[in-house]
Amino acid sequence: MTDRDGDPQDAIDARGERRRDGLDDRVFERSAGDGEGVPFVGAGPGDPRLLTIAGKELLEGADLVVHAGSLVNSELLEAYCAHAELVNSVGKDLEELIPLMRDAYEDGKRVVRLHSGDPAIYGAALEQMDALESEGVPTYVVPGVTSAFAASATLRTQLTLNEVANHVAFTRPQGKTLSEAEDHISEFVGMGDVTTCIYLGTHAVRETMDRLLKDGHDPETPVAVVYHASWPDEDVIVGTIGDVADRVEEAGYRASALVVVGDAVTGAGYERSYLYGDWASKSTSD
Amino acid sequence: MTDRDGDPQDAIDARGERRRDGLDDRVFERSAGDGEGVPFVGAGPGDPRLLTIAGKELLEGADLVVHAGSLVNSELLEAYCAHAELVNSVGKDLEELIPLMRDAYEDGKRVVRLHSGDPAIYGAALEQMDALESEGVPTYVVPGVTSAFAASATLRTQLTLNEVANHVAFTRPQGKTLSEAEDHISEFVGMGDVTTCIYLGTHAVRETMDRLLKDGHDPETPVAVVYHASWPDEDVIVGTIGDVADRVEEAGYRASALVVVGDAVTGAGYERSYLYGDWASKSTSD
Repeated sequence: MTDRDGDPQDAIDARGERRRDGLDDRVFERSAGDGEGVPFVGAGPGDPRLLTIAGKELLEGADLVVHAGSLVNSELLEAYCAHAELVNSVGKDLEELIPLMRDAYEDGKRVVRLHSGDPAIYGAALEQMDALESEGVPTYVVPGVTSAFAASATLRTQLTLNEVANHVAFTRPQGKTLSEAEDHISEFVGMGDVTTCIYLGTHAVRETMDRLLKDGHDPETPVAVVYHASWPDEDVIVGTIGDVADRVEEAGYRASALVVVGDAVTGAGYERSYLYGDWASKSTSD
Repeated sequence: MTDRDGDPQDAIDARGERRRDGLDDRVFERSAGDGEGVPFVGAGPGDPRLLTIAGKELLEGADLVVHAGSLVNSELLEAYCAHAELVNSVGKDLEELIPLMRDAYEDGKRVVRLHSGDPAIYGAALEQMDALESEGVPTYVVPGVTSAFAASATLRTQLTLNEVANHVAFTRPQGKTLSEAEDHISEFVGMGDVTTCIYLGTHAVRETMDRLLKDGHDPETPVAVVYHASWPDEDVIVGTIGDVADRVEEAGYRASALVVVGDAVTGAGYERSYLYGDWASKSTSD
């Protein structure tokens, strides 16, 4: 790091304070996925074909791609980034990553920051964007497909289903990052018509299911654990709150799976909406 | 309709019953976005560049595209479907759509069903898939980018932010489809650390905000209304639970906007995770 590098936390806090007073003008001037500077691109769930066209074009034009290591399918890097310098962000802190991206950008290189899934979901993109902006490097977001949508596609279901699942929650379990009070999984499941998608919880499936049982939720509630949705080694474990933990432990997965809790897992029992014109009315009364 | 056409609701119910006994083998044999037959493709939020590569290839190879009318940006249809027969699904019921797609498929045509956003979110895809499957036409899902991710990109924020927004809810307000008891918006907002994304609620912003105020939620809670995220006419209205309804009515939007409630709207006040290695640990302890 050079003398000009400030403390990223100070920079982030300063930008955060400004944001309370009024949003960045670019919010109103630019539309989603469009901007200038360093794009923070959602790589999608894994399959290179589930990257957006915008993401593909940005990667193909990039000189430097800073990617999320094993969270991004290496086939995607091989398909679109073979020509570029690749840097794995895992294990590097902001003090290392920010000068790396800033210096490359200032040298005229086309820099892409590649996050897994969509950067808006458990992505830690904004702190990097704020730190880069504070160093004078403009940034923007190119959204992507999140792993929950790939998991739903694999399960041949929808996360929302009339009468069965009226709502969807993206959540994570208590642990190092979240306190017990901040763990809302039992509340979401208790609502009865929410599809609960648990990110970052593969290592804690047994504890999570045990808490749900202790809270009195129906042990027969369907649960799917989708490992590496859309990757070549994708795997699906289907069970219930009562038995899925045994199956996950048997399979040996400790990371990189999405846990889906709720009746939408099986896709059974929903009421069709189509005949009654609900769908058609989406365009006018939504 | 011909004599062979059964009642789609009977077909859907029959498939649903089978599903309770065990999932379709294809769940375990195929990975997300991959399959044969008629793909149900998520068109993404609007911008043609935010379609997936898989979606683009399927549209470019299609003979017949059944699309969601004004919910899909016409620029996308022009960019990728100019060669294909286009059918607008709005106003057509299953009894009309299913034979149309089945007959084209049986005639050897490549048929694509194009839904807006991701088909798993308020998409009514599954009932069409079940009805087609019951007629012997295989189907599968190709996921897409949902409008909430485009809205987050436009707002230059994340839907999850350390300590500010630990969870995300995709929801819709009470009305013709949902009863008062099924409306969980106030519960999601009341959790305090949930970013609440309201789909299909543009026409009901005032009623929704009035209910939140009546339930005692902080009138200063940030709210963003993102109209047509990623479209050329994208517009952003930012306010609070207390004042956003006036602003939306002034702008005249009654449909096609996503309402985002919570502190993540401004992206202020979060705690960085990066320095402390949380990000790096996602790949090993997630």
